[in-house]
Amino acid sequence: MIEVLKVSSRSNPNAVAGALAGVVRSAGVVEIQVVGAGALNQAVKAVAIARGYLTPSGFDLICVPTFADIQIDGERRTAIRLLCENRASAGPTLDLRTTEAARVRAARAPLPDA
Amino acid sequence: MIEVLKVSSRSNPNAVAGALAGVVRSAGVVEIQVVGAGALNQAVKAVAIARGYLTPSGFDLICVPTFADIQIDGERRTAIRLLCENRASAGPTLDLRTTEAARVRAARAPLPDA
Repeated sequence: MIEVLKVSSRSNPNAVAGALAGVVRSAGVVEIQVVGAGALNQAVKAVAIARGYLTPSGFDLICVPTFADIQIDGERRTAIRLLCENRASAGPTLDLRTTEAARVRAARAPLPDA
Repeated sequence: MIEVLKVSSRSNPNAVAGALAGVVRSAGVVEIQVVGAGALNQAVKAVAIARGYLTPSGFDLICVPTFADIQIDGERRTAIRLLCENRASAGPTLDLRTTEAARVRAARAPLPDA
């Protein structure tokens, strides 16, 4: 089960970067979910910052953006998910993200915080 | 020399995705440069779309976000660059992106279109 960090436009990129780096160190992978340009901006800044935290440990943090259909207050929205992991990880997780099944699961996922 | 695509908030993600996939197929790597949340949003959507174009060819497109100091109309701005390439690429290019030299080069780069 991949941990999902939900990031909003009000999230602090440095704080998100710290959480991101912590989960990547312990679990090897984390997914960031955002809705909207402001939230995506904070998320991508967090990934850039987290790269700096992880590089000294030999992690080459990369991210893989995908779309996900989610529901917020009963309305369908398109979220963006950033799968973040070490480049060297062979990602079976990656294939999952691009299947229709993943999109269906995403649509059934709990409501995001932001 | 890595080709740089400058993406703005008015860029069409599908069109950017097509260009992105074309450059990755021919050169193996491309860099997207954006300033601002709206532009970043279009760029990340383009990467997600381009993954779909490239997966059938065996490319596992990943991106690496970094900051870059640039000048627009004489003012210093912080751009975000997304280095986009096949996951399997061993990236000497990646190391370059995180050095101070790269930041200095970025500051001296020509003015972006957006």
